[in-house]
Amino acid sequence: MSAPVPSPQPSPLPFFNAAFAYRSSAAIKAAVELDLFTAIGERGEAGATAGEIGARLGAAERGVRILCDFLTVEGFLLKQGGRYRLSPDSAVFLDRRSPACMGSILGFLHSRHVRVHYETLTDAVRKGGTATSAEGVLEAQHPAWVDFARAMAPMMALPAMRIAEILGAANRGPWKVLDIAAGHGTFGITLARQNPQAEIYAVDWPNVLALAQENARAAGVDGRYRPLPGSAFEVDFGAGYDCVLLTNFLHHFDVASCEALLRKIHSALKPDGRVATLEFVPNEDRVTPREAAMFSLTMLASTPAGDAYTFAEYEGMFRNAGFTRSEMHPLPPTPQSLIVSHSS
Amino acid sequence: MSAPVPSPQPSPLPFFNAAFAYRSSAAIKAAVELDLFTAIGERGEAGATAGEIGARLGAAERGVRILCDFLTVEGFLLKQGGRYRLSPDSAVFLDRRSPACMGSILGFLHSRHVRVHYETLTDAVRKGGTATSAEGVLEAQHPAWVDFARAMAPMMALPAMRIAEILGAANRGPWKVLDIAAGHGTFGITLARQNPQAEIYAVDWPNVLALAQENARAAGVDGRYRPLPGSAFEVDFGAGYDCVLLTNFLHHFDVASCEALLRKIHSALKPDGRVATLEFVPNEDRVTPREAAMFSLTMLASTPAGDAYTFAEYEGMFRNAGFTRSEMHPLPPTPQSLIVSHSS
Repeated sequence: MSAPVPSPQPSPLPFFNAAFAYRSSAAIKAAVELDLFTAIGERGEAGATAGEIGARLGAAERGVRILCDFLTVEGFLLKQGGRYRLSPDSAVFLDRRSPACMGSILGFLHSRHVRVHYETLTDAVRKGGTATSAEGVLEAQHPAWVDFARAMAPMMALPAMRIAEILGAANRGPWKVLDIAAGHGTFGITLARQNPQAEIYAVDWPNVLALAQENARAAGVDGRYRPLPGSAFEVDFGAGYDCVLLTNFLHHFDVASCEALLRKIHSALKPDGRVATLEFVPNEDRVTPREAAMFSLTMLASTPAGDAYTFAEYEGMFRNAGFTRSEMHPLPPTPQSLIVSHSS
Repeated sequence: MSAPVPSPQPSPLPFFNAAFAYRSSAAIKAAVELDLFTAIGERGEAGATAGEIGARLGAAERGVRILCDFLTVEGFLLKQGGRYRLSPDSAVFLDRRSPACMGSILGFLHSRHVRVHYETLTDAVRKGGTATSAEGVLEAQHPAWVDFARAMAPMMALPAMRIAEILGAANRGPWKVLDIAAGHGTFGITLARQNPQAEIYAVDWPNVLALAQENARAAGVDGRYRPLPGSAFEVDFGAGYDCVLLTNFLHHFDVASCEALLRKIHSALKPDGRVATLEFVPNEDRVTPREAAMFSLTMLASTPAGDAYTFAEYEGMFRNAGFTRSEMHPLPPTPQSLIVSHSS
C-alpha cells in the first residue's frame, strides 16, 4: 500500500484573483492608453528604465515603475536590472509599430456598451439571458457594433487570411460572396483582395456598413463592394451566391433563429455554394477549450438566447436548413474555428 | 551545435484575456451573489445538474449552466457527465457553510469606493498617485474602510491566528496591545481571545471602530477592548504598550510618513516592546512573489504615495524610527508576510 498523496493546502488566492481580475483589465488598458508598449518597444533589446519610459510618455516615473512591475508579473514585460523589455507576444501584438498590433480591441472590450452587460450578470443568470434590456446587443443599430467595427479588425486579420486560404479564394475566378454582419468588413475585403473577380455583398446596420465601406475603399476594393443595409433576418440578399461569410454572428441567437437564417441563406446560394461560419466552438463537454468555452458567458450577458454552440449543434442546424454536410477547421493560434457547410 | 529551439507561435490571447479579465470578476461576483457555491456544496460528492441548481436558486437552468461552465473553466467547479461539484478550494472558501468562507470580500473588492480607483488608472500612472481625489482612500473617514471592515474579516482570520502564534500571545500574561487601523478588529480580537489578560486599544475612524467593537462584543472580549477613535497620525496612543499591531496600514503612505508614525509608535512602546507589521512584501526585484508584487498597483490607484515596500525598505524605516531589529515571517498560504520589529 502506498502512502496517500497529501493534498495541497487549500488556498483562497484563486478566488481573490478572480474577484480582483478587473484590476488586470484596468492595468492593460492604462498601458495601451499611454502607449507604454510602443515606448518600450522603441528601445529594443536594451530596454528602458521606468524613468526613461516616463520621460518619453510624460508620465511619473513612480507610476510607470509600478505599472511596469504589474505588467511584468502578468507576463507582458520582462524586467532585468531595473530595465523593462517587451515580451515576444507584446512585441507582436501591443507595440503600435507592429502590423499585428491589437491595442484597438480595447475600444470594443472596454466600450461602455459592452461592459454594461457584466454589471447585471447576476440577473442575467437568474433570467437565463441578458438583463440589460429585452434584446441586449441585438437591438437594431446597437452602438456596440460601431465600437466593434472600429476596434476588432486587427484581431480578425489572421482568421480572415486563414478563411481565404481554406476557401481557396485566390483561385475561384468570378465569385459572388455575401458577407453577413460584415462589421469592419475584414473578412469580405480579404477575399476581394485575394480574388480580383470577387464581388462582395455586405450586410450590416447602416452605421456599421459606413465603416466597412471606408475600409473597402482603403483596401482598393470598393468598386466590388455592395452594401445591403439592414437586419440579416429581414434584408433581401438577392440570389446566386457562391459563398456566404457568416462570421461571429450565429452565436447571438437561439437555435430556431439560426435555422431560420440558414434556410434563408441556403436559398440564396448556388447549388454548389458554401457557407463559411467563424465561431467559438467548444467541445461537447462545453468546458474546453478554454476561450471557446468561456465565450458562452459573453452571450448570456449580452443576448437573450445566444450561446457558444458545439460542432454537433451547428452541424444539426445546417442539416435542418438543407445543407448536406459541414466540416470544421480549428484556426490556431486563434481561439476560433471555421465551419464550412455545403449547400448540396 | 544543437538545433535552435523553435519559439512558440506568438499569441494575442494573453492580451485578450487580460483585457477581458473583468468578465471573470463579474462571473465570480454573480456566483457569490446567487450563493451558487453553497447550493452545489450541499449536494456533496454527487454534485448537481444545472437544472437542479437552478431549481434550488430560483434561477434559469440556462443561466446556471453557462455560469457553471465558465466557473469550471476557471477551476472553481468540477464538471463530469453534466454534474457540477465544488473544487477543493471552493469547498473551503466559497461554500457559505464553511467557517473559512470568504465570499464577503467582494463587499470590499467590488465596492464602488474601491472600484472607482481603477477607472482613472491611466491618470494615476501619469501623475504617480491616485487620480480620484487628492487623498484617495486616505481621506478622513473614507467610506471604503467601512466596506473593508464589513467584508475582509474572513480573509484575515488565518493571518490573525498565525500572528498570535508568532507573538506567543497565549503565554504573555498581562499584555497591553495597540491595534492601529483595527478595521474589523480581527487581529486584536484574536490576541484577546488567546490571552485573557490582554487589553486591546483600537485605533480607527469612529464609523469603523463601531464595527470592530461589535465584533469584540460578539467574541466576548469587549470588556478588554478600548476604542481610540481618530487618525493614527493624530490620536494620542497613551504609552506602555507591550505590542503594537500594524496590519495592512503602512503600505498606504510614503516613507517619510511611515517613519513619522513609527517614531510615534516607538515612543508609546515599553523598552522591550514589539511591532507586528502585516504587509504585502515583494522581493527586491519587485515582480515576485506574484500577489505581493501586484499589490503596489492597488496603492498607485488608491493612494497619493503608498507602495508595496520590500523588507529592506521596511527594515530601514523601522531602524530610522529607533527600532533595533526586524525579522520577517512569510505566512503561506496567504500572500502576506509578518515583520516583527523590536523597540530595543
